Amino acid sequence: MKVAAKKDLPVCEIRRFLEPGPIVLVSSAYKGKTNIMTMGWHTVMDFEPSRIGCYIWDQNHSFGLIKASKQCAINIPTFDLIKQAIAIGNCSGASIDKFDRFGLTPVPAERIAPPLIKECYANFECRLIEFLARYSFFVFEVVKAHTATAPKYPRTFHYRGDGVFMVSGRNVSFRSLFKSHNL
Amino acid sequence: MKVAAKKDLPVCEIRRFLEPGPIVLVSSAYKGKTNIMTMGWHTVMDFEPSRIGCYIWDQNHSFGLIKASKQCAINIPTFDLIKQAIAIGNCSGASIDKFDRFGLTPVPAERIAPPLIKECYANFECRLIEFLARYSFFVFEVVKAHTATAPKYPRTFHYRGDGVFMVSGRNVSFRSLFKSHNL
Repeated sequence: MKVAAKKDLPVCEIRRFLEPGPIVLVSSAYKGKTNIMTMGWHTVMDFEPSRIGCYIWDQNHSFGLIKASKQCAINIPTFDLIKQAIAIGNCSGASIDKFDRFGLTPVPAERIAPPLIKECYANFECRLIEFLARYSFFVFEVVKAHTATAPKYPRTFHYRGDGVFMVSGRNVSFRSLFKSHNL
Repeated sequence: MKVAAKKDLPVCEIRRFLEPGPIVLVSSAYKGKTNIMTMGWHTVMDFEPSRIGCYIWDQNHSFGLIKASKQCAINIPTFDLIKQAIAIGNCSGASIDKFDRFGLTPVPAERIAPPLIKECYANFECRLIEFLARYSFFVFEVVKAHTATAPKYPRTFHYRGDGVFMVSGRNVSFRSLFKSHNL
């Protein structure tokens, strides 16, 4: 699997990759154990500070690792990783090492302990701001972001339920129809 | 603009349309005034009860209407409505009637006061569960859902920032790779 070189992305710009709603891979670590989960329930919550909110089921093995370590990385896979993403979502990290099992490369993060996933297009290093127990909802601040230098727009996949994914299609600029402060 | 007939959708199934991350139109009403806003920062939060979370900026005219009435409808537009969606997001409901200005048809909802947008593919009737002031984040319960009977998968648009939209592409089933309880 080839991965383009990565560059820093200002954390206020992560919406470019998260707002379209792709499936993401969440990497976590606690007491020497790492894990990866597949996630579709997330949203951008602010530009500055750069905030992401996401629902994580308390029965997921990653739930405990993230709640205890208060950190995770949100990694954006492209379509070539779809089978790994599905397989990651259909087994538990309680009994296997998912990096090893699925041939993914852990890369040290800069500002958090959990490793980033090298093969993903973008990697967002996140620190927990608050866990809202009533909704099993995590609010994170993105403290560092990395993206591949090419292609300009990644080909992502988006879950429709029932085993069906929508693959991202063409990209169209309607910039001329916006007021500049609304871009 | 032609719109297919609509049918009821079980509220636990709205993730099929919301999880892929489309731009939505939020309709609201309070004291005889209605409004529409364009929104991209939302997430599914649970199946049952069916919950949606979304960030709404407190400077948006819709913010006050939704906070006061504790209701809104989340409507999913298809690509034929993209210019209206952009225009709706680039003007304020404080001074204009957006249904009238953009030629959209208000349809009475069943369980909430705000009107649904007829031309949209799907309409989710929402009641506010909680407003999280720290994050300007609204948690809604979907109490009734309607979707068009065709096509099976709507052609939605997803915002990448900077005036660029991703148009939803092909739909692929990987159902055979899932454990049934994970679908």
